[in-house]
Amino acid sequence: MFETGHFSRLWRQVAERFGIQVEYLPGSWRRGVIVEDIERALSADRGHQYKAVMVVHNETSTGTTSKISEIRRAMKDLKHPALLMVDAISSLASIEYRHDEWEVDVMIAASQKGLMLPPGLAFNAISEKALAANKVSKMSRSYWDWKEILELSGKGFFPYTPSINLIFGLREALKMLLEEGLPKVFRRHQRHGQATRAAVHAWGLELVCEEPEEYSNTVTAVFVPEGHSADKFRSAVLEHFDMSLGAGLSKLADKVFRIGHLGHFNDLMLAGTLAGVEMGLRLSGIPHAEGGVMAALNSLSPKSKALSSQVK
Amino acid sequence: MFETGHFSRLWRQVAERFGIQVEYLPGSWRRGVIVEDIERALSADRGHQYKAVMVVHNETSTGTTSKISEIRRAMKDLKHPALLMVDAISSLASIEYRHDEWEVDVMIAASQKGLMLPPGLAFNAISEKALAANKVSKMSRSYWDWKEILELSGKGFFPYTPSINLIFGLREALKMLLEEGLPKVFRRHQRHGQATRAAVHAWGLELVCEEPEEYSNTVTAVFVPEGHSADKFRSAVLEHFDMSLGAGLSKLADKVFRIGHLGHFNDLMLAGTLAGVEMGLRLSGIPHAEGGVMAALNSLSPKSKALSSQVK
Amino acid sequence: MFETGHFSRLWRQVAERFGIQVEYLPGSWRRGVIVEDIERALSADRGHQYKAVMVVHNETSTGTTSKISEIRRAMKDLKHPALLMVDAISSLASIEYRHDEWEVDVMIAASQKGLMLPPGLAFNAISEKALAANKVSKMSRSYWDWKEILELSGKGFFPYTPSINLIFGLREALKMLLEEGLPKVFRRHQRHGQATRAAVHAWGLELVCEEPEEYSNTVTAVFVPEGHSADKFRSAVLEHFDMSLGAGLSKLADKVFRIGHLGHFNDLMLAGTLAGVEMGLRLSGIPHAEGGVMAALNSLSPKSKALSSQVK
Amino acid sequence: MFETGHFSRLWRQVAERFGIQVEYLPGSWRRGVIVEDIERALSADRGHQYKAVMVVHNETSTGTTSKISEIRRAMKDLKHPALLMVDAISSLASIEYRHDEWEVDVMIAASQKGLMLPPGLAFNAISEKALAANKVSKMSRSYWDWKEILELSGKGFFPYTPSINLIFGLREALKMLLEEGLPKVFRRHQRHGQATRAAVHAWGLELVCEEPEEYSNTVTAVFVPEGHSADKFRSAVLEHFDMSLGAGLSKLADKVFRIGHLGHFNDLMLAGTLAGVEMGLRLSGIPHAEGGVMAALNSLSPKSKALSSQVK
Repeated sequence: MFETGHFSRLWRQVAERFGIQVEYLPGSWRRGVIVEDIERALSADRGHQYKAVMVVHNETSTGTTSKISEIRRAMKDLKHPALLMVDAISSLASIEYRHDEWEVDVMIAASQKGLMLPPGLAFNAISEKALAANKVSKMSRSYWDWKEILELSGKGFFPYTPSINLIFGLREALKMLLEEGLPKVFRRHQRHGQATRAAVHAWGLELVCEEPEEYSNTVTAVFVPEGHSADKFRSAVLEHFDMSLGAGLSKLADKVFRIGHLGHFNDLMLAGTLAGVEMGLRLSGIPHAEGGVMAALNSLSPKSKALSSQVK
Repeated sequence: MFETGHFSRLWRQVAERFGIQVEYLPGSWRRGVIVEDIERALSADRGHQYKAVMVVHNETSTGTTSKISEIRRAMKDLKHPALLMVDAISSLASIEYRHDEWEVDVMIAASQKGLMLPPGLAFNAISEKALAANKVSKMSRSYWDWKEILELSGKGFFPYTPSINLIFGLREALKMLLEEGLPKVFRRHQRHGQATRAAVHAWGLELVCEEPEEYSNTVTAVFVPEGHSADKFRSAVLEHFDMSLGAGLSKLADKVFRIGHLGHFNDLMLAGTLAGVEMGLRLSGIPHAEGGVMAALNSLSPKSKALSSQVK
Repeated sequence: MFETGHFSRLWRQVAERFGIQVEYLPGSWRRGVIVEDIERALSADRGHQYKAVMVVHNETSTGTTSKISEIRRAMKDLKHPALLMVDAISSLASIEYRHDEWEVDVMIAASQKGLMLPPGLAFNAISEKALAANKVSKMSRSYWDWKEILELSGKGFFPYTPSINLIFGLREALKMLLEEGLPKVFRRHQRHGQATRAAVHAWGLELVCEEPEEYSNTVTAVFVPEGHSADKFRSAVLEHFDMSLGAGLSKLADKVFRIGHLGHFNDLMLAGTLAGVEMGLRLSGIPHAEGGVMAALNSLSPKSKALSSQVK
Repeated sequence: MFETGHFSRLWRQVAERFGIQVEYLPGSWRRGVIVEDIERALSADRGHQYKAVMVVHNETSTGTTSKISEIRRAMKDLKHPALLMVDAISSLASIEYRHDEWEVDVMIAASQKGLMLPPGLAFNAISEKALAANKVSKMSRSYWDWKEILELSGKGFFPYTPSINLIFGLREALKMLLEEGLPKVFRRHQRHGQATRAAVHAWGLELVCEEPEEYSNTVTAVFVPEGHSADKFRSAVLEHFDMSLGAGLSKLADKVFRIGHLGHFNDLMLAGTLAGVEMGLRLSGIPHAEGGVMAALNSLSPKSKALSSQVK
């Protein structure tokens, strides 16, 4: 596993609670997985002790993504037989996730992010290889075991009482996503990520994510300048504008606020969101340059486009 | 009656369809009622032929308001016995309307504006004087007659099948308005009206309403520059940003667009709305200065406030 | 017009309020229109003074229907040019109504009955002949005039703010009706009407409707025995079983209760309804024989059917 | 553990999957826990090897209840220190469950039964003794561990993304239960259980539960006569009456159908439900006597009550 942020930590914790020995490669919480680190670890693992490489695709606590395709390529180059497991909770249906092409063995997702539903459903996509490993595994498990749900869901049943209301909601959510078309959905989130970062840049604030190729298009984490409280700022925004920004988690607590821009979201909702941030910065006396919202509008609706439409 | 805009015209039409002779004082559609005009007409009416003065409080088609209190004062000064009837459809529960203090005889309102409900309910507030006039009136009427509903509603019944779902909704809407408190509701709409006008001013566009004292705080009508089509602009905003702006009506058709900011509305919804207008102006190649959204934010959240909070 | 019950009376009232002279043929409130009465009146009308024959298709206050097709046939036989106007409020989409075949000139319906929606929408279907009469009519009218809505609805607009939520609901309601298929919908209501009458018969109570060919399949009105209060009975049912039965109206007040069985309704809802009536009769000490619910079940699910399915 | 039916079996399965050695006292699936069996087992356990007595309070698969108070009394009499764990999933908020009085150590419940919500929330009530056991337990666990939720829920937080929509629903459900009052809620379910059993008796069918003192008041399981298929009967009821009856589970499959009567349920819903069963029996050619619905009505609304109200 690789320390990309709070959610990779939590995942590690789950693993360790079940007695799994985790090699947790340290990270700065400002980058995605550094592929060279994984290559180095796998190369050193001559005896193939590592059973799985586990990666958070989109680290919600920091707004960074990891390049799953490159990780898989590195594993292939090294002929390492470990399973590749990916937490796609805040990426699925919002940014590109290519399960088959990337040969992911276990993918984990949930209803409450890109699928635009209330919390309550979780999903796994599982490879044949992972299923085979599951069959021989001796770890204790019950509710989370795949066996029974695989047996029954093929017949339209569930081993336990399912969240039937959410399943109806899922049907509608998938219909909406397919009506828009996934390429358009991804492009929409890309535009919103870019516009949000344009705003942050204009304000003169610092992104948590240091590597442009790893920027998240579903959530943007932003440092407040030293000596200022991100949580007081968040409270002011909530109180004055009825908008709940994400908190900095764990070691980023009170230093960072997070702007979510995923799921059922459009340009004007983003503009309203960024307006709330800009007015909140002002109200909270946090040093910043004006004009973040304007920069976002310029990003969303470039002037050249206006000119070209004038020419028509 | 006074020609304040499209809705005063429609009201006149209703009156004339029932055979009422209407003296319709002409207006520019850029002002509310000019009190002197009414004074002049009432002064000339020595025989008290005029039975009612009928005024649209907030003219939704132009974004102007009329000063009901001054109209009533003029009627009192002239001791004219006409009834005062007010269309408060787009003002009630959003801007100040003082039924008793202004001694309005008949007020008309509806569910779908400041009361934040779907369309389907209408309301009258009626003075004793209006009730007395109603009793002797020989005009034909049935569904709209007050008689039966007054008899039955006191006992909790309706003469006809009522829109019961909306009545439950009304109970909740009133609860929300009273929780916020009407003075705060009015102040909220005032802030949004001011911020919207600040944006229009920054864009260098022209308001339909010419008189600052008569600006509407629930809807703002804006001219597009000559040679440009307001309707094409509105279509572009709808297509690109999924936002439906109000059309110019009747003689303002294609010349004007209207920004609604009433009912269940907050600062960030307004910021999103104005962002949609600004990006739409750009996309449609309509000449304008940048920065309307920024001006609105400055209006909503003045810098001085930020400074004072920094000092704390 | 013909006195079929409370709703024909109300309709007469509307007409008279607009200054229309109504010939109101008396009726017992226990029958639909008696075609011979109308024939007699039209035959006597040599000068064609009657401009319209106005009939309530399904009289909700008494649970009787009138035979529109026979009324139209009589009008044709007598070559009387009057318009045929039909109140189909509680029949449309529940029992057979053949607008074109019966050559109805004006049909009136509403959202809250067979269309399964909340109250708030009303509908007219209008013949060319009625439109022509409308054009030359000098009666004052405004909101209820057909002119503007006919002009605009063809273009997808409304002259006034429409009940847009109900229009979305209507789209779904029509989809549901067409999925089931109107013949099945009518058959369903027929079964429920028959089962309800079987229950009433078993209880030894008396139907308001005296003529089996005129039984309503959407509502059944039932007399309580003399000396008993239908309203006290209704109150007991409401209090003990949370079920609201229809009241006797006008001259049937306190003598009659009404069981609605229209719209979105199925066999088990009917069984529950009739169980509430039977237990309510018992609780209220109203003399009756037991077994109405059983009689209804026998009507809904005949034993022969069971036998035939046993043979399979 | 005691074999009361399908759900006690599933609970045993969960325990065994986590490596717990279960002494599973055999049962007929037609009784609740037989207290003497538990007494015998605990008496024999001189070394206090048993760590917990685990009982399903209301066995949903068979319609039997177990007497938790007597089990606790037996444990006390024998001074056995085992924890008492109770599955109250289909009893809580529908039939009497006295957590404190019965000194239950761990109670398990869920949102989708007596709490009248969609599935998605589960609840534990935990004694100090169980918490102490939890702290020293070395069993692997993560999501289901109590530690983190206990730490955070006191501050109004959740360790994981909570089903927030259901939590709002829970607030309303609790409000409804408290408005009715738990004693009335329990009495309502008791009346419905009695009426359902009166119907089954009248049909001449056999209840799964053999012991009247153990009848469930939230679900009734009924045998179809030998040679008949409960599942074909259930399919016929679903097809003809749009009502889904519970299936016989595991060794009762196809032999039993189950009538649920818990949660948000009233007399007329029960009458409709039983009418669907009676008509389904007839349609499916299952031998039975007529009159189950009538017997239920007699149970719900006794004649004596009617007489006494006649006397008034």
